[in-house]
Amino acid sequence: MSLKLYYDLMSQPSRAVYILLKKSNINFEPKYVDLRKGVHYTDEYSNNINRFKKVPVIDHNGFILTESVAIIRYLGRENLLPEALFPRADKVLNTRLDEFLEWQHLGLRAPLAMYFRVVMFSPDSEKIPSYQKRMETALDEFSTLWLGRGNQYILGDTVTVADLLAACEVEQPRMTGYDCTANYPVIREWMDRVRTYFNPHYAEASTIVEKIAAKRVPMKKPTAKL
Amino acid sequence: MSLKLYYDLMSQPSRAVYILLKKSNINFEPKYVDLRKGVHYTDEYSNNINRFKKVPVIDHNGFILTESVAIIRYLGRENLLPEALFPRADKVLNTRLDEFLEWQHLGLRAPLAMYFRVVMFSPDSEKIPSYQKRMETALDEFSTLWLGRGNQYILGDTVTVADLLAACEVEQPRMTGYDCTANYPVIREWMDRVRTYFNPHYAEASTIVEKIAAKRVPMKKPTAKL
Repeated sequence: MSLKLYYDLMSQPSRAVYILLKKSNINFEPKYVDLRKGVHYTDEYSNNINRFKKVPVIDHNGFILTESVAIIRYLGRENLLPEALFPRADKVLNTRLDEFLEWQHLGLRAPLAMYFRVVMFSPDSEKIPSYQKRMETALDEFSTLWLGRGNQYILGDTVTVADLLAACEVEQPRMTGYDCTANYPVIREWMDRVRTYFNPHYAEASTIVEKIAAKRVPMKKPTAKL
Repeated sequence: MSLKLYYDLMSQPSRAVYILLKKSNINFEPKYVDLRKGVHYTDEYSNNINRFKKVPVIDHNGFILTESVAIIRYLGRENLLPEALFPRADKVLNTRLDEFLEWQHLGLRAPLAMYFRVVMFSPDSEKIPSYQKRMETALDEFSTLWLGRGNQYILGDTVTVADLLAACEVEQPRMTGYDCTANYPVIREWMDRVRTYFNPHYAEASTIVEKIAAKRVPMKKPTAKL
């Protein structure tokens, strides 16, 4: 089997797929795509690897596939992932996993990634408070409607790919100096469990996040005006 | 079998699931959730049907499921959908369907729905031009990177649920007076094929869209300033 992963660990879904491959003992050839140098915008990359100019991408024996959630589904169907992490036999759990995987695009990823983008690339923007408010509404929902139902993980007391994808999203705004766990103890405790489960791979993949986060002054708590 | 569908045809994923059920000859009990009256925000709805306060939702023999794409996957696994519309046996087609279903959340739905929302609910907003630009970037990508590859439909020359979901999203901004097909002939021709295939159900489900669209003055073509 030949599996190549095109990725940059600055990208949250790249980290999720990278960690998942390592944790599942899947051998792969790492193909680093330097987003900060715009390698994803080159003709070579967009013509041959990903017409959407994004990461991650896998090339499995010549079959090229984009979209992190589609990649994870594919690896599951190819029987490359442990049943516990990507439950397929238990129909109810499989459906609840689907429900979360579809929810997280607009429910969690979009508001957090948009906040990250506006603070990183337009830091003087007057739009920051409204993006922060949207992010915190998403964190409220994630904390209460998915976590906070008395379970250790998103879908129950067993960790799944849902937790890994979500944790990598929740990690992202730390690079702007905003710690999503600071005001959400339920999220903080869950993050600790997810990190511990996926270590040492989680920590390895998050080195760049840690480095950038360490340089940032933590954001203040949102004011009443927000 | 007892299947209930909670929906409002103002909602684009509601229309997609509604049309899919009709086209697949699946009997269901329609449960109208009047979004304009805020029925989705009532305690009764959010406590018993959907904690995310959205539509559509299905209740299949007491099993309640949210998220339109998860609902479609579930109906597919329950063998309620025709193989042609939701290909499962053809592994490559199944994976390409996954790729589109995951892409469309942020690639198509988010930019179109955000434009729709800002024009409908904050029509004097100075933000409209930037939302229109984002929507048109998404339409460019959809037109060239998915359609425009020489096929009749998104995944090839056969219509699938991908086309239905996308068409219902592309339809939505018409209610603001913006016709997504006006400057995109590839999208217009594809929309005609999708509507025709899913009629009369497509037209029936789109009655409310047509009514509201008819009252709106068409938006001008974007100016050079955009």
